[in-house]
Amino acid sequence: MLESEQIRLAARNGTLNQPTTGLAYGFVQANLVILPAADAMDFLVFCQRNPKPCPLLGVSTPGERGIPSLGVNLDIATDIPRYRVWQDGEMVNECADVSHLWRDDLVSFALGCSFSFEEALLEQGLELRHITQGRNVPMYRTNVPTNTAGKFHGPLVVSMRPFKPADAIRAIQITTRFPDVHGSPVHIGDPELIGIKNINQPEYGDAVDIKEGEMPVFWACGVTPQSVLMDSKPKFCITHAPGYMLVTDLKNAQLAVM
Amino acid sequence: MLESEQIRLAARNGTLNQPTTGLAYGFVQANLVILPAADAMDFLVFCQRNPKPCPLLGVSTPGERGIPSLGVNLDIATDIPRYRVWQDGEMVNECADVSHLWRDDLVSFALGCSFSFEEALLEQGLELRHITQGRNVPMYRTNVPTNTAGKFHGPLVVSMRPFKPADAIRAIQITTRFPDVHGSPVHIGDPELIGIKNINQPEYGDAVDIKEGEMPVFWACGVTPQSVLMDSKPKFCITHAPGYMLVTDLKNAQLAVM
Repeated sequence: MLESEQIRLAARNGTLNQPTTGLAYGFVQANLVILPAADAMDFLVFCQRNPKPCPLLGVSTPGERGIPSLGVNLDIATDIPRYRVWQDGEMVNECADVSHLWRDDLVSFALGCSFSFEEALLEQGLELRHITQGRNVPMYRTNVPTNTAGKFHGPLVVSMRPFKPADAIRAIQITTRFPDVHGSPVHIGDPELIGIKNINQPEYGDAVDIKEGEMPVFWACGVTPQSVLMDSKPKFCITHAPGYMLVTDLKNAQLAVM
Repeated sequence: MLESEQIRLAARNGTLNQPTTGLAYGFVQANLVILPAADAMDFLVFCQRNPKPCPLLGVSTPGERGIPSLGVNLDIATDIPRYRVWQDGEMVNECADVSHLWRDDLVSFALGCSFSFEEALLEQGLELRHITQGRNVPMYRTNVPTNTAGKFHGPLVVSMRPFKPADAIRAIQITTRFPDVHGSPVHIGDPELIGIKNINQPEYGDAVDIKEGEMPVFWACGVTPQSVLMDSKPKFCITHAPGYMLVTDLKNAQLAVM
């Protein structure tokens, strides 16, 4: 059995209650959004119009609890270690299983996550400051609007990693190879140009040190859809809890386009 | 007959006396360095060790006046509109033909030139400020040493083009496809980090405007070998005059690695 399937089964039977960060090395982890079919079509269009923050790795048909391309025996209602349940844009519950909330009209979206490109950056010898400092990556709401689709709208959220300029150039090249997991950066340099007032006060995650001679590099972030869901307030929605991701059977290396 | 061959023949018979910039659209233009065999081996190693400023498109054997891979009927001693002759690191003459100086031990080096990647940047809709402003691209001596080979040594020379951050990212992606014509940038952002004290006072070419919200992007420059020749002072050397390039039969699009 693949290590990824073992992780999913452990989440399913309740023996895995921790964030999936660092588990099942080499396997693609994904952000999860589950919406009723009435909203799913708009959200699917939203993803299509915003591929950098919402790169769609897989989607189910209404009611289907598997996404065949992403995992053997995958049950989307049980295989994530922690879920968040949302009503009208407010989080109303966190739980380890959403079988009791399942409906025949629910559609599941698996969206690419930066863990995949971070693995590629680390393998090529680049330092990721938030990992060195044992923190969550810093994330910021920008003044850059996403492309609206139906009720879904809201600003782009970005993650930031500082690099020396030559490493920033290399990081752009490496992440360009991975369009399904946010791809190349959306911004480099001056944070104010995208509406970030204080680089030391991220809206999500933790601030990290930016050393003399380094520049901030910004990628579209998978927190964008959660931020958009809070702004757009669909009646009902389920997501993963941050850091508790869907572990798929895809390998990160498979996502490289060249 | 290819437009490139027509240009070379016009230079040969003396009817073309202008810079080659903008001529034979789509064809690769090259920097030229001609050295006696005694120095050529070191220079060949220098190019191998410094592929970003000195990307080698073609090299002749000693005494050979053609470079078969670069052009039909190419005569390296007559087909460039203007040459510079150097002795002990000093320019001693400019002329339209170096047949009278030809020796059986001369080796010719054709090095990639930024015209090729600039065509790709323009075709993808990016603005090149020096072209908009009708100036030469600004070039700077940096404090970044090249990798020494025998007598050849000296600092890296870079060219600079300003872009908005998102366009800078795109420019990195585009030029990465063209390693034979300087490839990806060597630096972005703060000029002082590579020893450039005043961005408005380039050592070669002309200053260009950098607008609010733009960042300077620096590429290794084909002027580096000329600067290295001035520093390293080989006894005898011939180069092209700046802007009067070797027009080859290669197409720029052929140089893209993907």
